[in-house]
Amino acid sequence: MELNEKTIAKTTIYNGKIIDLEVHDIALPNGQTSKRELVKHNGAVAVCAITPNNKIILVKQFRKPIENTLLEIPAGKLELNEDRTSAAQRELEEETGYIADDLQLITEMYGSPGFTNEKISIYFADNLRIGEMNLDDDEFVELHELSIEEATTKLQNGEITDAKTIIAIQYLLLNYNHSK
Amino acid sequence: MELNEKTIAKTTIYNGKIIDLEVHDIALPNGQTSKRELVKHNGAVAVCAITPNNKIILVKQFRKPIENTLLEIPAGKLELNEDRTSAAQRELEEETGYIADDLQLITEMYGSPGFTNEKISIYFADNLRIGEMNLDDDEFVELHELSIEEATTKLQNGEITDAKTIIAIQYLLLNYNHSK
Repeated sequence: MELNEKTIAKTTIYNGKIIDLEVHDIALPNGQTSKRELVKHNGAVAVCAITPNNKIILVKQFRKPIENTLLEIPAGKLELNEDRTSAAQRELEEETGYIADDLQLITEMYGSPGFTNEKISIYFADNLRIGEMNLDDDEFVELHELSIEEATTKLQNGEITDAKTIIAIQYLLLNYNHSK
Repeated sequence: MELNEKTIAKTTIYNGKIIDLEVHDIALPNGQTSKRELVKHNGAVAVCAITPNNKIILVKQFRKPIENTLLEIPAGKLELNEDRTSAAQRELEEETGYIADDLQLITEMYGSPGFTNEKISIYFADNLRIGEMNLDDDEFVELHELSIEEATTKLQNGEITDAKTIIAIQYLLLNYNHSK
């Protein structure tokens, strides 16, 4: 079945710091036309990091779009032409002060593929060593280290609602021996 | 720790069919100012639905932002003032032809809380009965019914990258007796 949508015309509405907005006129598989609103994003990385005493590191930060704080695994945007693994190591150290020498890719995810191309690569890391925190000027975060049981409870009672963080906790429950 | 960011001024850049774009000047917790780009979305629902022969229903559709098709659980946007559970039942029947009389909430998720308020409620449903497919005029989808093992393989080899779908499959692996 032909599913592709071809762009006939494209209007750039906005070029921003983190996102750009385009509206495309498209040809549908049946030949008719429609419009698609596209939010372009450079991509992001996130790290499911386990401390030496077997806790998952979460950061609490205010998320302006939802006017509330969220508990999330450490994450950040890719810099221009930055390698995803290096970006994950950089973001982990900047936000938490931990260095991960060895990262394993858990999965790549699209959070809202209906309107944005943002792709987040989620990594697993343990065997952390101490580095140096270094937050962006406009970044304010609170560190929380939770046992996997505590994180699971927060997922079940709705205190954790960030998609990459839900995926990371489920991954630990399925793949990580957290009783060790 | 004070984390809130207060809006000082707001500019609406775009009012669209599915999203609006606003740029806010904000006061940071330390009193300095910055900007936030916010994509407003009315919210969405998704259904992890299991057929009578124990398969998960996925829809393959072209996602213009990533210029590719994705395999996803059935999902759709909330209509104005629509109840989330009713929306999930409506979207499931429209996209797959199955009716779910009883839905259980798995979780709510924010896919990209750094720049959008889109919240997706993910439901579980089995005991489906046959209804009637009814796609939107600009919606073209291909139905795939996969065993949970087949879906897990596609997750592991990177063929499934949609966040709500990853969460649904991992939920089944953790909570659903798929050998029955």
